[in-house]
Amino acid sequence: MILSNMSTCTVEEVASSCNAVRFFQLYVLKRRDISAQIVHRVEKNGYKAIVLTVDTPRLGRREADIKNRMVAPQLRNFEGLLSTEVDTDKGSNLEALIKGIYDTSLSWEDIGWLKSITNLPILIKGVLTHENARKAVEVGVAGIVVSNHGARQLDYTPATISVLEEVVHAVGGRVPVLFDGGVRRGTDVFKALALGAQAVLVGRPVVYGLAANGERGVRRVIEMLKDEFELTMALSGCPNVKDITRSHVTTEFDKLRSML
Amino acid sequence: MILSNMSTCTVEEVASSCNAVRFFQLYVLKRRDISAQIVHRVEKNGYKAIVLTVDTPRLGRREADIKNRMVAPQLRNFEGLLSTEVDTDKGSNLEALIKGIYDTSLSWEDIGWLKSITNLPILIKGVLTHENARKAVEVGVAGIVVSNHGARQLDYTPATISVLEEVVHAVGGRVPVLFDGGVRRGTDVFKALALGAQAVLVGRPVVYGLAANGERGVRRVIEMLKDEFELTMALSGCPNVKDITRSHVTTEFDKLRSML
Amino acid sequence: MILSNMSTCTVEEVASSCNAVRFFQLYVLKRRDISAQIVHRVEKNGYKAIVLTVDTPRLGRREADIKNRMVAPQLRNFEGLLSTEVDTDKGSNLEALIKGIYDTSLSWEDIGWLKSITNLPILIKGVLTHENARKAVEVGVAGIVVSNHGARQLDYTPATISVLEEVVHAVGGRVPVLFDGGVRRGTDVFKALALGAQAVLVGRPVVYGLAANGERGVRRVIEMLKDEFELTMALSGCPNVKDITRSHVTTEFDKLRSML
Amino acid sequence: MILSNMSTCTVEEVASSCNAVRFFQLYVLKRRDISAQIVHRVEKNGYKAIVLTVDTPRLGRREADIKNRMVAPQLRNFEGLLSTEVDTDKGSNLEALIKGIYDTSLSWEDIGWLKSITNLPILIKGVLTHENARKAVEVGVAGIVVSNHGARQLDYTPATISVLEEVVHAVGGRVPVLFDGGVRRGTDVFKALALGAQAVLVGRPVVYGLAANGERGVRRVIEMLKDEFELTMALSGCPNVKDITRSHVTTEFDKLRSML
Repeated sequence: MILSNMSTCTVEEVASSCNAVRFFQLYVLKRRDISAQIVHRVEKNGYKAIVLTVDTPRLGRREADIKNRMVAPQLRNFEGLLSTEVDTDKGSNLEALIKGIYDTSLSWEDIGWLKSITNLPILIKGVLTHENARKAVEVGVAGIVVSNHGARQLDYTPATISVLEEVVHAVGGRVPVLFDGGVRRGTDVFKALALGAQAVLVGRPVVYGLAANGERGVRRVIEMLKDEFELTMALSGCPNVKDITRSHVTTEFDKLRSML
Repeated sequence: MILSNMSTCTVEEVASSCNAVRFFQLYVLKRRDISAQIVHRVEKNGYKAIVLTVDTPRLGRREADIKNRMVAPQLRNFEGLLSTEVDTDKGSNLEALIKGIYDTSLSWEDIGWLKSITNLPILIKGVLTHENARKAVEVGVAGIVVSNHGARQLDYTPATISVLEEVVHAVGGRVPVLFDGGVRRGTDVFKALALGAQAVLVGRPVVYGLAANGERGVRRVIEMLKDEFELTMALSGCPNVKDITRSHVTTEFDKLRSML
Repeated sequence: MILSNMSTCTVEEVASSCNAVRFFQLYVLKRRDISAQIVHRVEKNGYKAIVLTVDTPRLGRREADIKNRMVAPQLRNFEGLLSTEVDTDKGSNLEALIKGIYDTSLSWEDIGWLKSITNLPILIKGVLTHENARKAVEVGVAGIVVSNHGARQLDYTPATISVLEEVVHAVGGRVPVLFDGGVRRGTDVFKALALGAQAVLVGRPVVYGLAANGERGVRRVIEMLKDEFELTMALSGCPNVKDITRSHVTTEFDKLRSML
Repeated sequence: MILSNMSTCTVEEVASSCNAVRFFQLYVLKRRDISAQIVHRVEKNGYKAIVLTVDTPRLGRREADIKNRMVAPQLRNFEGLLSTEVDTDKGSNLEALIKGIYDTSLSWEDIGWLKSITNLPILIKGVLTHENARKAVEVGVAGIVVSNHGARQLDYTPATISVLEEVVHAVGGRVPVLFDGGVRRGTDVFKALALGAQAVLVGRPVVYGLAANGERGVRRVIEMLKDEFELTMALSGCPNVKDITRSHVTTEFDKLRSML
C-alpha cells in the first residue's frame, strides 16, 4: 500500500497496524526541514520506497470542492510540526491549506535533494509524457507512476490508459512503470498490465468500499478486483501474469495500424 | 440446428422430432467419461458434427444472472449420469453448477482426445483472433465458429462482426468459417456472408420468437430473417448467395483505406 | 421538376399547368406495353428526359408504412390501363400494389429497351457506387442521379452525400451527375455542388411546404432554399455557381488526408 | 480591447474612459466617406490598430434573432452621419439595418483603400483558411484574426481552434496571428497559444460578466480567465508564456500522426 503524507493516520500508526509492503507518498513542503523529518520517520517505520508526487505544485481548480466548501482532512503526520489551520470562509479549505504549505517551486533538481536525505528508492508519481518519463530515468528515479491525479488537477489531461504505452516505450524497461487512474474492474488491471505496466494502483474503489462497509468493504473490493482479474486472465488464456502480453488487448491505435 | 448439451430436451428427443441437419454443441466436463458417453449418443442419433465450445472454461461474470439469482436449466442430457443439483442461496445458480462440472483445464491438446472418441467432424466455437484461427486449423478442426458467446463471457470482447474478416483471412479457405453474434436482421446475415462467413448462426431471435409465440413464433422469426435477407440480396443486386461479395459492404476500415 | 409515374396528377395535367423544364421519373412495369404508352405520352407532352428509377425492383421493407397500413396513392397515370386495386387487410397497401405491378427483373439490358422506345435522354436514378456509375456511362445513359431513395429502400445504405464524390470521380465528367437525399438547407445544395454534382434535387422539403400551406408553402420553401444557398455562396466568396469548388468544403476524408 | 463600430458608446467616450491598448473593429459601409470619417476619429483618439471584419459582407441567417425579433443596438458612432432607423415589423431588425448600410462588395482591393486613408496597422478578422491567410499577408495586413464570428455567420463553418494551426503554418511567422472563438476557460487560452496564436481574444464571457454584475462582473471574468490560464501554465510546466509550445497540446491530428 501507498500511504500519503496527507493521511489522517500517522506514518507510525499505519506501520504498526499493517503488514503489507508499504510505500510513502510525499508532497514536498515549503518547509523542507519538516519534509525531511517525515522522510526519516518513514524510513524508521519500515516503508520501502518514497513515491514523490510531481503533478501537484499547486492544487488544480476543483470546482466541486469549491462549491461544497471542502474541508481539508486533519493532517496528523504534521502534528506539532506545522500549523495546518486555515481560515477560509468560502471556497475549498483544502486548496487554501495546500497553497500555504506546499513547495510550488518543486523541480527536477529536487530529486537530488530527496536522494541526499534518504536511501529509500524514489518513485516519481504523475508522469504522462515520454519527455518526462525519459527525464525521470535520467535523474535516477527507481520507478515511474503514470498518473493524472484522478484527473482532478487539470482539465483535458489525457486518460492515463491512453498514455501508458508512450511512457512504457520511453522508459524501455530501465525502471518499473506503475499505473493508476480509472481502475474499477479486473479488466482494467488486465489492460494496464497488457500495455506494459508492472503494477496497478487502486484509489477510489478502496475508498468506496471503506465508505460502504468499513474494513470489510475494503476487503470485499480487493477480493472482487482479484476475482475479476483472475477470470479475465482465464478467459484470455493467460495462466500466469507474465503470460499477459501486448497482443491480448487492442487499442484504438492498433485498429488504425491494422488498416495500413 | 445446433443443440447444446445444456439443453432441456435430450439428444434423443430432439433427434426424433426434428428432420433438420443437426450439430451438437459440446462443453467438456471434468468427468470426461460422461462427455464421451454423450458424444456417442450424439453420433448414434444422427448428428452431423460436434461444435466444441472453447470460450467457456469458466462462466463469465454475468452480473444480471447474479442479481436475478439465475436458476440453471434442468440438464436432462445428464440424467442418471451426473448430479446437477447445486445448493446456492445467492448469486447465479448456473455459475455454481458450471463451476462444479466443466473442465477448466480444456486446452488445444483436447482436440486430440475428442478426435480419439468420435469420427464426427469437429468445429471449434469461440474463436476471435487470427492466432487462434490458425492454431485451430493446425490441430485439424473441420470448421471455425466466430463467436463471443453472446458477449456474455468477458467485458470488452470485440463484436464478432468486427473480427470476422481477420479470422477469415487467417483461415484462408482451408476450413469453413461460421459466424454468430448480434444477428437480428436479414441485413446482418448479408453482412456476415459478404465478409466471408460460410454460414450464419442465430440464437436470441429464435428464443424471442419462442417466448412470444411458441413454435409459431420461432417459424415467424426464421421467415422474417429469410424475407429480409432475400430482399437485401435483391436490392444489392445479388440473385444468388454466391453473388454476395466483399465489395457489397463497406466497413470502417474500408473507409479509411479508401483515403490513403 | 421531375414528375413520378406514381403521381396523383397525370402527365398531361402537370404539363398543361406548369411551364418548368420537366423530366419524368419512370418505374418499369411488368406490363412493358403500358410503360411504353406512358413514355409516349411523356414525350408528346414536352417532358425533356426520362429518369429511370433503378433502385426499386422491389419496395424496401418500410416498417412505418407497414405499421401505419400505408394506403397507396391513386395512380391516375394508369387509369384505364392497369388495375391498381389491391386487397390488403394488413401491412402496407403500397408494398402490395408495387409487388403486383413493378418489373422485378429490371436489369442493365433494359436501358436498351427504353432507348428503343424513346428518343428522350435517359437518366438513371439510384446509383451509389463507382461500379454502377461506370456501368451506367457504358450503357449510354445521359446522366446519373445519386440517390438512395430517401434511404427508405435498404437499411445501411450509405448517405448519398458520402458517396457523391466516388460517383463523380468514376463518371469523370462524361455525363452530368445529379444529386438527391437529405437536402434541407441551402448549405446542403452548396455542399453537393462543391463535391461535383451538376444539379441538386429536392423532395421532402417541397412536400412539407405543400402540407403546411399548399402552393404558397411550396413557393416559400423554394425561396428559402434559394436565399440560403445564395447567402452561403456570398459568405463562401463565390459570386457565381461556377466559383463553387471542391476546396470550399472539407469532408471527413479531407481531414484525414491532411494528416498524412 | 477591441471596440466595434457597432458599439453603443462612441469611439471618443471609450477612449476617454479606458487606458487599455485599444484597437478598432471596422465594418466597411456603403458610404465609404463615413467609414473614412470614423477611421480618422479612431486615429485621433489614440487607437492603435484597425481590425477589419471580412466575414460579414452580409449578415448570416441568425434564426434566433429572426425569431426573437432582435432589435439593433443604437449605433452612436454614426450619430449625425447615417440614419440607422429601420422599419421592420418582423424578423431581425439588425439584419435589416446591416443590409442597408454595409458594403457587400468588400474585396481584397479594399485593403488598398483602407491603407490610403490611415497609417494605423490593419489586421484582418475572419480568416479560416490557408488560402485567405496567404492572400492577407500578400496584400500587406499587419496581423490576422482567426475568427468565425462566433459561428453566427454560416452553418458548418469550422471551429476556429480546428483551423488555427492551418493558418499559423500558412502565415509562417510573417505577421502575428490572433485567435477568437469558444474561449471560455484558461485552458482554452493555453491551447490557442500552444497552437501558435500570438494573442487570444475573448467576447462572450465578458458580456456574460457584464450581464451578471456590470463592471465588477467583467473584472471577475477576466480575473478568472487569468487565474485559470496561469494555473494551466503551472501544471503544464510553463513558467513563462513563451514556454508554451506545440508539444504541450495533443490534437486529434497528433493522435493519428503518432500511429503512422
